[in-house]
Amino acid sequence: MTVIVNTGDDFDWMGLRICPDLDTVMYTLAGIANPQTGWGIAGDTFEALGMLQKLGGETWFRIGDRDLAIDLRRTQSLREGKRLTDVTEALCRSLGITPNVRILPMTDAPVATLVDTDEGTLAFQDYFVRRAWQPVIRRIHFRGIERARPSIEVKAALDAADLVVLCPSNPFVSIDPILALDGVREQLREHRTLAVSPIIGGQAVKGPAAKMFHELGQAPTALAVARHYADFLDGFVIDRADADQRAEIERLNTRVLVTDALMRDGADRARLAREMLGFARTIPA
Amino acid sequence: MTVIVNTGDDFDWMGLRICPDLDTVMYTLAGIANPQTGWGIAGDTFEALGMLQKLGGETWFRIGDRDLAIDLRRTQSLREGKRLTDVTEALCRSLGITPNVRILPMTDAPVATLVDTDEGTLAFQDYFVRRAWQPVIRRIHFRGIERARPSIEVKAALDAADLVVLCPSNPFVSIDPILALDGVREQLREHRTLAVSPIIGGQAVKGPAAKMFHELGQAPTALAVARHYADFLDGFVIDRADADQRAEIERLNTRVLVTDALMRDGADRARLAREMLGFARTIPA
Repeated sequence: MTVIVNTGDDFDWMGLRICPDLDTVMYTLAGIANPQTGWGIAGDTFEALGMLQKLGGETWFRIGDRDLAIDLRRTQSLREGKRLTDVTEALCRSLGITPNVRILPMTDAPVATLVDTDEGTLAFQDYFVRRAWQPVIRRIHFRGIERARPSIEVKAALDAADLVVLCPSNPFVSIDPILALDGVREQLREHRTLAVSPIIGGQAVKGPAAKMFHELGQAPTALAVARHYADFLDGFVIDRADADQRAEIERLNTRVLVTDALMRDGADRARLAREMLGFARTIPA
Repeated sequence: MTVIVNTGDDFDWMGLRICPDLDTVMYTLAGIANPQTGWGIAGDTFEALGMLQKLGGETWFRIGDRDLAIDLRRTQSLREGKRLTDVTEALCRSLGITPNVRILPMTDAPVATLVDTDEGTLAFQDYFVRRAWQPVIRRIHFRGIERARPSIEVKAALDAADLVVLCPSNPFVSIDPILALDGVREQLREHRTLAVSPIIGGQAVKGPAAKMFHELGQAPTALAVARHYADFLDGFVIDRADADQRAEIERLNTRVLVTDALMRDGADRARLAREMLGFARTIPA
């Protein structure tokens, strides 16, 4: 299994390179993620951050002490000239993630998600964390995306994939940066690609996805998500709450699986993964 | 009161600028020093370092989580182009050190203490911490010292000083770097300068001073320390254990105060400081 991860959220903080999405996937697969917050390491402490606050440093981005070690190590390796892909690989091995699971940053080039809002253009973490996604979005763009290329590992993983699954992440800021990379959309069109709707009953399971749909002039529905991916989507998983949208989604030339699409715990995740694999088998490669 | 501090021990670790002597003086005067270790912050935790070890990072230099925050903040400020002198001033204020006490790095230029040993030339912290000062010293030198200048604040503080006191620090690696800066020795010759012997009864109060004297071909005695400073020394404080060296030290044209020179606690420090000030008054400016 290969997980291709958005790096548009990455940013520099106190001279360190922070990769929030890579970290969250890494911590989750290493079994050390904090389930309460959805970010950071379970049981992490915040001694360094507390002292930084005393020293007048910026502390709105909550980095725990162990988290900080990851950022220090990553930054050191990047400064030595290593690619983010290789640095991430080494961190995964150190954290005990099994070698049959690979976590790949979407690109080794710097890409920065910027959000044009009613309060001006904001760096992603400034919008998402510092302002708790309250500003009204007008446009989202990815600085550096034209020059960025998917890594050879990402290209090879997509080329070799039996099945590509778009997880129920935010379509605009977590999935679109990956899709915007040169050639990725084209590769998906050539492969069996499924997606799980991050919108259930008009609500985002987590985060600002529904709010973003509204602000960008669309109703937040599973159908809207399917339309967003329509050019390459072979199958779409929606929740029972959205079963009434099935026919319209199928008109996008996409098969639909209606199930319990909300993952509350590990058992839900395993069940949904099994259902996805079964669903994929019904779709010609 | 102005404390002029050696920066020859400073080094880069994981992309951060570490200033062990400045930190120790700063933490001591802020009342947060760890009295057990002689370095670091009392009650500091080591979560980041523990994780770094897991990640294969170098962890022989023990940096606590709060300590790390100091290093992050300092490094960030230095990268913004601030002078170490100003960065240190800001850290002192944040840590609540009263404004009538100033801590000055001896220079804003990079100076690195190197130790030629029987195991080759070692960076200072490699010798001192990693190898626990066990290699046999042949020579000590200060890389960059020719180009380094004392800061204008250091020059001005020495110019304006009623009294200069060399604390009972290691003469070779803690005091000599300061003395080696252009013009400092000359300034001390023009001012009333006292020193406290770091050698008592042939032993270093702490650290490798006695071992270094041996390895550099001298007996470790209070007299040897006085000789080291003879060209500018007006008064020398020695312990009762070394009273027999009084006459020979006085022949260096230096007055001698024989007292209890070992500082075990705050009360000892206050007493010795008072005795020093009384002693200074007996010496013509």
